[in-house]
Amino acid sequence: MKLKLTLAFLLSGHLLMAQTSEKLIPYVHPIIGTQRMGHTFPGATAPFGMVQLSPETDTISYELNGKYNPDVYKYCAGYQYDDQTIVGFSHTHFSGTGHSDLGDFLIMPTVGPLKLNPGTAQQAHSGYRSAFSHTNEISEANYYKVKLDDYNIIAELTTSTRVGFHQYSFPKTDSAHIILDMESGIYNYPDKNVWTYIHVINDTLITGYRQTNGWARNRTLYFAISFSKPFTSHGFRNDSKKEVYRGFWGKLNQSKDFPEISGQQIKAWFNFNTSEGEKIKVKMALSPVSMDGAIQNMQAEIPGWNFEQVKADGQQQWETALHKIEISSKSEAEKENFYTAMYHALINPTVYTDVDGRYKGLDQNIHKADGFTNYTTFSLWDTYRALHPLFNIIEPKRNADMVRSMLAHYEQSPEHMLPVWSNSANENWCMSGYHAVAVIADAIAKEHLNGYDPQKALEACVVTARHRNYEGIGDYMDKGYVPDEKSGVSVSNTLEYAYDDWSIAQAAQKLGRDDIYKEFSKRALNYANVYDPASGFMRPRLNDGSFRKNFDPLSTNNQGFIEGNAWNYTLFVPHDPAALMNLMGGESRFVRYLDSLFTMELPDKYFAETEDITRDGIIGNYVHGNEPSHHVAYLYNWTHQPWKTQARVRMILKKMYHPTPDGLGGNDDCGQMSAWYIFSTLGFYPVAPGNNIYQIGSPAIDGATLHLENGQTFKITVKNQSDKNVYVQRLTLNGKDLPGYQLSYDQIKNGGELVFYMGGKPKK
Amino acid sequence: MKLKLTLAFLLSGHLLMAQTSEKLIPYVHPIIGTQRMGHTFPGATAPFGMVQLSPETDTISYELNGKYNPDVYKYCAGYQYDDQTIVGFSHTHFSGTGHSDLGDFLIMPTVGPLKLNPGTAQQAHSGYRSAFSHTNEISEANYYKVKLDDYNIIAELTTSTRVGFHQYSFPKTDSAHIILDMESGIYNYPDKNVWTYIHVINDTLITGYRQTNGWARNRTLYFAISFSKPFTSHGFRNDSKKEVYRGFWGKLNQSKDFPEISGQQIKAWFNFNTSEGEKIKVKMALSPVSMDGAIQNMQAEIPGWNFEQVKADGQQQWETALHKIEISSKSEAEKENFYTAMYHALINPTVYTDVDGRYKGLDQNIHKADGFTNYTTFSLWDTYRALHPLFNIIEPKRNADMVRSMLAHYEQSPEHMLPVWSNSANENWCMSGYHAVAVIADAIAKEHLNGYDPQKALEACVVTARHRNYEGIGDYMDKGYVPDEKSGVSVSNTLEYAYDDWSIAQAAQKLGRDDIYKEFSKRALNYANVYDPASGFMRPRLNDGSFRKNFDPLSTNNQGFIEGNAWNYTLFVPHDPAALMNLMGGESRFVRYLDSLFTMELPDKYFAETEDITRDGIIGNYVHGNEPSHHVAYLYNWTHQPWKTQARVRMILKKMYHPTPDGLGGNDDCGQMSAWYIFSTLGFYPVAPGNNIYQIGSPAIDGATLHLENGQTFKITVKNQSDKNVYVQRLTLNGKDLPGYQLSYDQIKNGGELVFYMGGKPKK
Repeated sequence: MKLKLTLAFLLSGHLLMAQTSEKLIPYVHPIIGTQRMGHTFPGATAPFGMVQLSPETDTISYELNGKYNPDVYKYCAGYQYDDQTIVGFSHTHFSGTGHSDLGDFLIMPTVGPLKLNPGTAQQAHSGYRSAFSHTNEISEANYYKVKLDDYNIIAELTTSTRVGFHQYSFPKTDSAHIILDMESGIYNYPDKNVWTYIHVINDTLITGYRQTNGWARNRTLYFAISFSKPFTSHGFRNDSKKEVYRGFWGKLNQSKDFPEISGQQIKAWFNFNTSEGEKIKVKMALSPVSMDGAIQNMQAEIPGWNFEQVKADGQQQWETALHKIEISSKSEAEKENFYTAMYHALINPTVYTDVDGRYKGLDQNIHKADGFTNYTTFSLWDTYRALHPLFNIIEPKRNADMVRSMLAHYEQSPEHMLPVWSNSANENWCMSGYHAVAVIADAIAKEHLNGYDPQKALEACVVTARHRNYEGIGDYMDKGYVPDEKSGVSVSNTLEYAYDDWSIAQAAQKLGRDDIYKEFSKRALNYANVYDPASGFMRPRLNDGSFRKNFDPLSTNNQGFIEGNAWNYTLFVPHDPAALMNLMGGESRFVRYLDSLFTMELPDKYFAETEDITRDGIIGNYVHGNEPSHHVAYLYNWTHQPWKTQARVRMILKKMYHPTPDGLGGNDDCGQMSAWYIFSTLGFYPVAPGNNIYQIGSPAIDGATLHLENGQTFKITVKNQSDKNVYVQRLTLNGKDLPGYQLSYDQIKNGGELVFYMGGKPKK
Repeated sequence: MKLKLTLAFLLSGHLLMAQTSEKLIPYVHPIIGTQRMGHTFPGATAPFGMVQLSPETDTISYELNGKYNPDVYKYCAGYQYDDQTIVGFSHTHFSGTGHSDLGDFLIMPTVGPLKLNPGTAQQAHSGYRSAFSHTNEISEANYYKVKLDDYNIIAELTTSTRVGFHQYSFPKTDSAHIILDMESGIYNYPDKNVWTYIHVINDTLITGYRQTNGWARNRTLYFAISFSKPFTSHGFRNDSKKEVYRGFWGKLNQSKDFPEISGQQIKAWFNFNTSEGEKIKVKMALSPVSMDGAIQNMQAEIPGWNFEQVKADGQQQWETALHKIEISSKSEAEKENFYTAMYHALINPTVYTDVDGRYKGLDQNIHKADGFTNYTTFSLWDTYRALHPLFNIIEPKRNADMVRSMLAHYEQSPEHMLPVWSNSANENWCMSGYHAVAVIADAIAKEHLNGYDPQKALEACVVTARHRNYEGIGDYMDKGYVPDEKSGVSVSNTLEYAYDDWSIAQAAQKLGRDDIYKEFSKRALNYANVYDPASGFMRPRLNDGSFRKNFDPLSTNNQGFIEGNAWNYTLFVPHDPAALMNLMGGESRFVRYLDSLFTMELPDKYFAETEDITRDGIIGNYVHGNEPSHHVAYLYNWTHQPWKTQARVRMILKKMYHPTPDGLGGNDDCGQMSAWYIFSTLGFYPVAPGNNIYQIGSPAIDGATLHLENGQTFKITVKNQSDKNVYVQRLTLNGKDLPGYQLSYDQIKNGGELVFYMGGKPKK
């Protein structure tokens, strides 16, 4: 044991040296995906940072005349590349989501007459927003710079994990303002602000909090602001509706005299005199626990005022993270796609603990994380597929902490369930399934058990999967499927539960719990109960066992599926494609089905229904912009035509990812789309997280070196690869032929070399 | 030193034995003051308890059709004796205030069809409220019992310091309900509830919180409920206005399935089956810190289910507190008045720390009280006069903790000011002056310095008194008075500041700070700057130094005074009545002025203006129902006619206090009215807190024994006292004649005997 450790250390020492010194940040373009549907943000953040400090180009209200405002969807991440104006810089953003929240603590520097409303894009000068142009904009990992044309202010942003750092270069003026707009937010709507508070402690230190009832119902985020220079004066505005005691005895004139203000809708501003080019720096520390916690986070992470140092420290974190996979490619575009995908893959989930380990739990009490970092922002329906499996290769310790965070969630959740979509100590129940179990099963399969008891983790999975009154699980357990009457997405639920149950069974088997293995292996077969042999599709099934009469397998509207149609979802048996193939009538029909999925022409009326993606997000009827089909291209590996997997994967990589603002074919979904890209570019993909098998596809690079936390390196060499040579001719692992178009995690974790020999013709 | 201590212990041991074993609780009638203007509550509380568990007979909205609803004023304490129905039992109440708040966590037991609205007094059966009658009502110190006629339920209430304990005896039924109405509150108005939360942890344990924007702007109170018997089922109702994600994905059906609910307006109910007479017990623990804190408070204070024991423990606390003053009187009514006054004097301020010492501070952060109990509910404009001076005799350690709480308030307050009227970690700025300084000065004068640095305390007083932008202090410092233009209550402010400044000067002198002594002794003379020799009254003065033209010394409307007219306020120079007498033209005119104050007939139109009091609250033009004149009856002691003080005091005692529900002539004001009664009944009164002198009045009893915390006893013997014999003929202290109608604190604290020789004729 000792010897092993020592060896590992030696190796790791050796490998650190082995890492190339090439800077990878130049290949990262956070701007990718900021146009149209990507829903990424261009601002600054550290890997998995609590702070995502980024410009808002608009803050559209969720409601317009009391109705849902479809435009709000564009602003899930606060920024749209085509916009001409910037409203300000806020400190929290989701990366690539379809629903949204956050946008906390908008800060905007201005000069001249004080304006307190953002104004509109149509009438920019009606408010404090400023015009900007992309020519004056720099967007890097952990660094963002832009010129605010209306004010001749250069704004620069960087961060540490919990602190946002603004550096504003002002012109000479006696009327510089820094506005703190607590009314602004992403996916805002009337009364989303529950309560807000600002406390001016002195002329350089401000604290406060924002409590919202949004996608997270019971959310409070605390802040502490520090200015590098004392303000000369400050002011408050309270736009809240009447409060009985607001002006009690006329003593509470909150706009002056008093150093604190609270209310539902409040703003503050701070005034400065500046010389030409004078830099005013602003640190904004966040805490999920308290204002004291925010001050503590600031003191711990950024005690001083050296902007360049903070930027360099954060970028060094990125370099270290990016270097875990070093690729070689003749294509700059390839490197830009790849390292930007790496960047987008390492933003969510986000740290949700103060530096002292305290965090708010699902029970709305304050807890202390004992020996781990607590995370939030779990978009699990998306990320269980490829993102967490990727972490199990390049960030296993972090992923184990994410598992511990999910177990803490389970312990603290009033429903005693693992997270579905958790955000800031709240559960929003978004999407279907209970895929936290797949993330846990995958970690157990790969033996990343740092600091948690796998038996307890298994119990959490089982209790969650037996939660009878959640989303038709009771019927699912009794009948083997979720009846159409019980849920609008009964088929998706049945299929996803079946896969999740299989992953539980795998973990149970590994942990020697034969009872659980049997129970959930049986449940894992339930996918078959919603397969309709007559139509050849998975199809909504009624209580009485019959299939729903009117049924359109091309439609995604009320057909029993979520973010997908029957054509795509019918292939959702990732844990047993072979059995699915038989169910669907054998190999030849299965291949025909896959072929037509990619080649058919989807009529426009059906495209119109398809959520979250652009026209480019579809290939035939294959929807890459949504997740349910992310494994589909790899299913040819279960047939005798694996070369079709290789061709399809390369086609998807080419068609769906570009190193441009509009380069993402759909929402990045907290890194899942990027993780798919990373795996597929490397040449393999985890079709069924929960086991150790990856399916071989077609690498789009000339080679890669994976630096593992255990000190091992796994080398991928790709010979004769080109846009034409997408077909695998031969595969060797450590010099020996690798059969079966499969790779196992064990073969990676022990290090070694995988060599792809590529050619222009399918190897039949 | 050692010897001294030992002696003290011996004495104290001796004195404990010396205390009579007579039960005093039978003389306590919490119901006194619950009719009309007393604003006391009849429910259960421990001395200074965090919980005041009491019935609401109505919860009137602060607003009616968008306008102030004058009826809300009657319900400052939630209960009006004349009402016929009880809405439920809530856990927090102010005692005797004029503005109000609280009424948190209303619980109502019912049987039969579930009703979730309280209904109205006019249509009782339209809601869950129940009829009751005083014949089925018992109201004792820390015990309340009533029969809910509509449901045939016997409700009993008792408390510990932080936990309310309900005991409900149900009839036989399969439809018993316990309703938790989080929408209910005192001085409620739309949007006063900012956010509320209920978490059903299991079938006997519930936690949650209520966040309000009321008289306290930023207030959150947390709770934990424990049932003695598991409920069979529960339900939620969310009456909040639309929330975008309330029913997200249809999974958040908060009325069932889910064990938690949050929103602005929510209710919960818990269902039980009961046998005839079955008792269901409910413990409700409070915390200003967290739900965990509430659970911890419950476990520490009431781990079990023995209602009788909890009641007995709380009543023993009351017996110990009441026994600090043992009186002898031939009159039962006298004893009822006196011990009910003692009871009302020992309710506010209230404990505001969890059992672990944690509390929320004015800065909205959580703090830990280091070696003291933190208190809130400081109605200082009222209570600096007699209540805190009373504590300095019978509760000096507690009073020192109150001083420490005020210093913590100062440290944490964004305004860096001592409390004006503080409530639940918030400042509401109610009334005039900065009388915390008088409370601190009085504690320093009496050398009750337990655990705080008097120099730091003095600094807090000085900083507060120099807060230029608070309520005209800047002008007051510059001009020597608050100009009429600057404040609607400029004269009250000037007079009260001058007195407060004098008290600061006394503390400074005692602490050897000659600089501060000089500065504030000079400020203490400012009262003279608002005296108008022409009219002979204190009078609003303009910026230019002239007095306001149109001026009505009888009116309390916009005359520059608060809760008083010029006639009364002109006498507000408690720190130097002799100088005031000269200012007003010498003794004979001063005596005439005092005589006419008590004897003149105040025209009804002026009475109509007088706040907070009943017709009986006025004697001539002397207003006892409000505080500014509480010292006035004692001012004859500065003339050669002290017997008039003796006669007036006895007349006020007789006229203003009765052992009946309508027995209080005005709001009890957190115990100030009661403290006046206690001092005056004992025969002396602190006209100027901040020095050690009490003015002799006329004792209304035959004797009293004061048990001091230092182990000493001070005995008062009154010979030949009766309703006729109200005049002091002779006074001896420890056998020697006591001259000058004055008694000092030092003469009390060292123990001894004061003998009054009374007679039917003034001693001229």
